Amino acid sequence: MKDKMTIVLFSGELDKAIAAFTLATTAAASNMDVSIFFTFWGLNILKKSRFTITRFQGPIQKMFNLMSTSKLPLSRLNMFGLGPWMMKRLMKRTGMASLEDLMILAKQLKIKYIACTTSCGVLGLSKESLAGVVDEFAGASSYLNEAKDSKINLFI
Amino acid sequence: MKDKMTIVLFSGELDKAIAAFTLATTAAASNMDVSIFFTFWGLNILKKSRFTITRFQGPIQKMFNLMSTSKLPLSRLNMFGLGPWMMKRLMKRTGMASLEDLMILAKQLKIKYIACTTSCGVLGLSKESLAGVVDEFAGASSYLNEAKDSKINLFI
Amino acid sequence: MKDKMTIVLFSGELDKAIAAFTLATTAAASNMDVSIFFTFWGLNILKKSRFTITRFQGPIQKMFNLMSTSKLPLSRLNMFGLGPWMMKRLMKRTGMASLEDLMILAKQLKIKYIACTTSCGVLGLSKESLAGVVDEFAGASSYLNEAKDSKINLFI
Repeated sequence: MKDKMTIVLFSGELDKAIAAFTLATTAAASNMDVSIFFTFWGLNILKKSRFTITRFQGPIQKMFNLMSTSKLPLSRLNMFGLGPWMMKRLMKRTGMASLEDLMILAKQLKIKYIACTTSCGVLGLSKESLAGVVDEFAGASSYLNEAKDSKINLFI
Repeated sequence: MKDKMTIVLFSGELDKAIAAFTLATTAAASNMDVSIFFTFWGLNILKKSRFTITRFQGPIQKMFNLMSTSKLPLSRLNMFGLGPWMMKRLMKRTGMASLEDLMILAKQLKIKYIACTTSCGVLGLSKESLAGVVDEFAGASSYLNEAKDSKINLFI
Repeated sequence: MKDKMTIVLFSGELDKAIAAFTLATTAAASNMDVSIFFTFWGLNILKKSRFTITRFQGPIQKMFNLMSTSKLPLSRLNMFGLGPWMMKRLMKRTGMASLEDLMILAKQLKIKYIACTTSCGVLGLSKESLAGVVDEFAGASSYLNEAKDSKINLFI
């Protein structure tokens, strides 16, 4: 049986997402079973665009949904979006994989994406809008079952 | 013997507190032993009011104690308090349990609250002010003993 | 064989660094094997000065390197540097060990420092500039090998 790693991805920031996906893809490439449980701001990482999902949302939900894969802020030195732009340039110049690259790799390595149903409800994210990306919609108890058998558990 | 989960609750933000208590109560409801070690800003979550504890504090300590259960900020889009207000409205409207509800449930499920003595000292929090809520005052070594036997360890 | 603890230190904030080093030194003092994997902003904690390393860096990298051990911000109430100054005063007055003290203790207790090679590359940190402090330069797979055998894994 393979060793398991489970990550709760709560944060919706570019730098934390890159850290999470670097760890996840490296683990999966070295033959571990990896699951990521996306909750709260972490769900923003999965959204291709901030616009695809507005049909189901009220105005407050729209405001909490302004971020998407290519628009994530930095956790430090965000500077109204200048920080992420600089970080991406720097990563490109030093030959580091982008978040988008890491996410394609994650799918190829069969990393399991679980979206937190409660957070989806609060943020007004429909199953349809995330269906292409997410493997499972589930609650905290489903995450805990995965985590109990995991050698590595991280909350990011 | 029951499986154990141990959480270090370092952050004093509404969204992270809700995530921590959702995971903790779900685990306890499915028959796990759960301990939460409150340290630094996490201690703010336990305070009913920012005013009950000022008698023991100097001016700097007062400033670091401006938050309490009902006044927690959001980790993103706080917008000087508008964000948490909107988040609470949204949670109510979508039928999600509030942090206060989750904390009542946590007590019913016998989740163990440990308050970090060092942090209490720095922030000027007296044992009396937290006595009704906290099960134990202890240091990092007490946390580590719990964590060593836990199947799930998270730092939030 | 000794029990192991492994910490990913991603954050470069004073309060989180103190929490990480308090847990790490307490664990090492009670006979655990402790490794810390420094990545992204966490690498700032290791830098004695923001100036020693500029020779190898472009302008954007310089900007991402403005922090060093004694200049770390707080994750909350930073107030343009007033917060960390107040926190340090408070810690001194209440007899708590400073970050610098904890880091000296960490070295005495043989806590292993691993610096993430990918992050070093992006931030333009040369091996020379960190050589005195770091035990090993390695990537995510090296971290995962340590983490797999650890009883306690935390992402801070």
